[in-house]
Amino acid sequence: MYSRVGVVAKQEDAAVRPALAKVVAILAGKGVEVILENESAALIGDYRGPSTDLETMAGRVDLVVSIGGDGTLLHAAGRIFPKTVPIVGINLGRLGFLTDLAKENIEASLEEVLSGRVDAEQRAVLGCELIRGNDVIAHGNGLNDVVIQKWNTARLITLSTYVDGKFLHSQRSDGMIIATPTGSTAYALAGGGPILDPNLDAVVLVPICPHTLTNRPIVIGASASIEVTVATDRGDESRLTCDGNDISDLLPGDRIGIFRHSQTMTLLHPRGHDHFSTLRAKLDWGRDPC
Amino acid sequence: MYSRVGVVAKQEDAAVRPALAKVVAILAGKGVEVILENESAALIGDYRGPSTDLETMAGRVDLVVSIGGDGTLLHAAGRIFPKTVPIVGINLGRLGFLTDLAKENIEASLEEVLSGRVDAEQRAVLGCELIRGNDVIAHGNGLNDVVIQKWNTARLITLSTYVDGKFLHSQRSDGMIIATPTGSTAYALAGGGPILDPNLDAVVLVPICPHTLTNRPIVIGASASIEVTVATDRGDESRLTCDGNDISDLLPGDRIGIFRHSQTMTLLHPRGHDHFSTLRAKLDWGRDPC
Amino acid sequence: MYSRVGVVAKQEDAAVRPALAKVVAILAGKGVEVILENESAALIGDYRGPSTDLETMAGRVDLVVSIGGDGTLLHAAGRIFPKTVPIVGINLGRLGFLTDLAKENIEASLEEVLSGRVDAEQRAVLGCELIRGNDVIAHGNGLNDVVIQKWNTARLITLSTYVDGKFLHSQRSDGMIIATPTGSTAYALAGGGPILDPNLDAVVLVPICPHTLTNRPIVIGASASIEVTVATDRGDESRLTCDGNDISDLLPGDRIGIFRHSQTMTLLHPRGHDHFSTLRAKLDWGRDPC
Amino acid sequence: MYSRVGVVAKQEDAAVRPALAKVVAILAGKGVEVILENESAALIGDYRGPSTDLETMAGRVDLVVSIGGDGTLLHAAGRIFPKTVPIVGINLGRLGFLTDLAKENIEASLEEVLSGRVDAEQRAVLGCELIRGNDVIAHGNGLNDVVIQKWNTARLITLSTYVDGKFLHSQRSDGMIIATPTGSTAYALAGGGPILDPNLDAVVLVPICPHTLTNRPIVIGASASIEVTVATDRGDESRLTCDGNDISDLLPGDRIGIFRHSQTMTLLHPRGHDHFSTLRAKLDWGRDPC
Repeated sequence: MYSRVGVVAKQEDAAVRPALAKVVAILAGKGVEVILENESAALIGDYRGPSTDLETMAGRVDLVVSIGGDGTLLHAAGRIFPKTVPIVGINLGRLGFLTDLAKENIEASLEEVLSGRVDAEQRAVLGCELIRGNDVIAHGNGLNDVVIQKWNTARLITLSTYVDGKFLHSQRSDGMIIATPTGSTAYALAGGGPILDPNLDAVVLVPICPHTLTNRPIVIGASASIEVTVATDRGDESRLTCDGNDISDLLPGDRIGIFRHSQTMTLLHPRGHDHFSTLRAKLDWGRDPC
Repeated sequence: MYSRVGVVAKQEDAAVRPALAKVVAILAGKGVEVILENESAALIGDYRGPSTDLETMAGRVDLVVSIGGDGTLLHAAGRIFPKTVPIVGINLGRLGFLTDLAKENIEASLEEVLSGRVDAEQRAVLGCELIRGNDVIAHGNGLNDVVIQKWNTARLITLSTYVDGKFLHSQRSDGMIIATPTGSTAYALAGGGPILDPNLDAVVLVPICPHTLTNRPIVIGASASIEVTVATDRGDESRLTCDGNDISDLLPGDRIGIFRHSQTMTLLHPRGHDHFSTLRAKLDWGRDPC
Repeated sequence: MYSRVGVVAKQEDAAVRPALAKVVAILAGKGVEVILENESAALIGDYRGPSTDLETMAGRVDLVVSIGGDGTLLHAAGRIFPKTVPIVGINLGRLGFLTDLAKENIEASLEEVLSGRVDAEQRAVLGCELIRGNDVIAHGNGLNDVVIQKWNTARLITLSTYVDGKFLHSQRSDGMIIATPTGSTAYALAGGGPILDPNLDAVVLVPICPHTLTNRPIVIGASASIEVTVATDRGDESRLTCDGNDISDLLPGDRIGIFRHSQTMTLLHPRGHDHFSTLRAKLDWGRDPC
Repeated sequence: MYSRVGVVAKQEDAAVRPALAKVVAILAGKGVEVILENESAALIGDYRGPSTDLETMAGRVDLVVSIGGDGTLLHAAGRIFPKTVPIVGINLGRLGFLTDLAKENIEASLEEVLSGRVDAEQRAVLGCELIRGNDVIAHGNGLNDVVIQKWNTARLITLSTYVDGKFLHSQRSDGMIIATPTGSTAYALAGGGPILDPNLDAVVLVPICPHTLTNRPIVIGASASIEVTVATDRGDESRLTCDGNDISDLLPGDRIGIFRHSQTMTLLHPRGHDHFSTLRAKLDWGRDPC
């Protein structure tokens, strides 16, 4: 089913190199055309095959294999988007929320994937546009989240939020996280947000350390158009980031439009994948400290 | 538009009586056929008109007016459901989440309502069935929530939860709240749950004082079928309630099926009703204590 | 150092029997006079030695060994208090907050304990008195906590709290937990309370699902005199419990006085005991799910 | 009782000017020697009296009056400390946690203060030292808090915390707040911390958005010596601040020692001052949204 496979691997992790070499060898042995992401290729000393950057790769392969953790997969998926290449993640150590092929029995697992015996899942992706005056001056995508946060200051920032043109609230806080279901188990969870089922067409707005103690996470339909206005009167005290990537500084009066892309990311899982099982394992729900 | 109107009023509140009398007089003056709920009728000493119980009323009117707070409206709506009569609430004091006709200018407001110049909103309703052995031995409806909670004990209870037949988690806690968007601003909010937009086709599962500290509220699609199993091994230590109404005691092995009804409750609001504005007012989002 | 030792063991746990037999044999082999708690004695089929209830035991031994978990130790300590016999806990499986002798190498550990090569720690104990009209009608002790909670109802209860005679707050909630530092890692933690260092002479008041969202846990000096008044107007809808033991039903107007005893419980630990290490292990602080 | 009074007022608030002029006139009218803080003096166009900076003022007066909000008082107190001049706050609008002389009846209130008919309260002050290599390269004081926070990054920081030389935990988060009882109602509260009674000799450690979900605020004795080590391996990604004031950037390996000063700040209140009453008013504990 998949005959041209791109491979991307985590940097600065000694365990990656042998796993990467093994994956490349397995794929080559199966007659699959392999392309490595440039920095990943550099990890294998004697690699002679083709390599390219992620954006170019996305146009030339029909599957991307990510080796590392959720962060590696997320980063790659962000670069590939909005191309529609499916992605599958091999985790090197602990199970990830997104990377659920174990490196053990990797040959058998890859055979299943290549032949299409997988569960494909569509994950929503957020887009954001930063509007200053009348111009869109920056934009970004978030598979996890779009975050507006204080920056370079110990002071609170003031944000006003509108949903489908209606005023929701103005709040003083350290910032706000707008997260997809995928992102609901990442930064938004640390900020006190709920877990959203991946099938749910919704986003959650999680205030970061809000000074109005009655502010709570709010879950709204993902088709809503969200606008956040920077109401702080000082410059360069807040920042727009997507999935932890810096998009732009923010100035008073800046408006950030946030929307869900109609295009999704395609995530592959082993057959019989069970998201709840991953949640239980990752969040250690069997553990009862008290 | 509405020509037969049922009226239900809060008990044990001195402010209700004059408001009720006034509403009845206004409706009668407009040539509307009025039916009072029995106990509400008893509040007006010299009332000579027809009265009945809520279930019967629901079959004979095309609109129900609730006088009191959210609790009064919720209770009436629960009795009316699954009949499809729309309901509108007059609050006597503070604005409610559901009751947003102020008693001031009530004549003008009622005129708007009667002529259909209102915003109609559909709110989801949960149903639940208690299965013991092979039999459904009790059932109930929740506009706010279905709650399984410890009862008559200071001990934790153990609940196992399944979503669409898949095991979600087993947790020791004081109980679990399964709330609609309507209920997300009621008990579920006190339990630490997020706010769900009323338009969202979702429910939230909020653990009550979970001993596994990583348990968090989970938001899932409302079309999911939820089953909660009572895994506690002692009898009569937990209870099933809907909107605060006692449905049944629970025994070890009992299974509670929870689902969203396809039938909704129709809630009327004044034209231009703004749910976010109600949230801001009720949750006092302008207030910044720190 | 210790020559008369009482032993108490957990009921209904198959792993207890051999551990108990072993502990008794080790103690007897060292020439120590052993007394078993009555129900624990019944666990050993052929036990011929002396046994008694915990209260009597407390007057006849100079050390109590608890075999089981924190719950077993806590229950025994509550029965022994206010006698000043030190207590040490052997955990059978997982490390406990209080029980930190592992069953492995138990002979060596017991030798250390018996010779007094241990760290002794004083833990605060709460007392409470229930005052109805002019009479104290019930009282109890809590090593973990004194809890006033809703009972037999899905309705909120209203409690008014006074500290040293000054009004603190009136709140509607599912109840309130007043916890010692020991109890701060038990029910109070599940209720959202902070962790109190065992050395801190303080108690924490943790509201359970408070409807006023700005209510937060409050930490006050342990020498304060706390009074909680049941302001709910219906009877038998709330309960007073200590360490999970039922003390009394509560009626409207009941007043519960809560104070820290000057007498402490003496808890023995292996030399070099590190409370922070226990916290890290029990709360799994190395785990980073996001 | 007080004959030399320093006055400091909030900047950039139109309501301050007349209040300041009035206070100065009242004090002068009572024969009190008045010194204004320099920038406050500039607010009164025709002020001819003495003015100085806060540090110098602290050596020349026996009372400081702060006009504005809690922030103004806190800032002044931080500059005055460790001099032992008592401070009293006049709030211009909303009641403050610290500033509880209302501008209404200010003449009578000031008369009470000047004659010493006040309640004096001692508030703990934190100190911190930043140690890089073998040198103390910066230090600061916090009446509210000492905060180590991520800076200029969307990445988590890793902090290791030691209490009295014992390892407490290593955590990945947005930072950590170490707060006094005074600060427990400020940033620490927004971060999810408990309220500490001002009389309690304790500090609370509040993690900011911790990734380990079981991390909770911890309350320890204020006499403890706390050390936080910056374990993040990248430079300039975190910052040390006290009461919102920037103290220093932080580099990998930096150690921050935090301790409570033996010297306190003396805060004056009107006779019969009731801290609980202020808590109720500021946190709006009468409000029951659900």
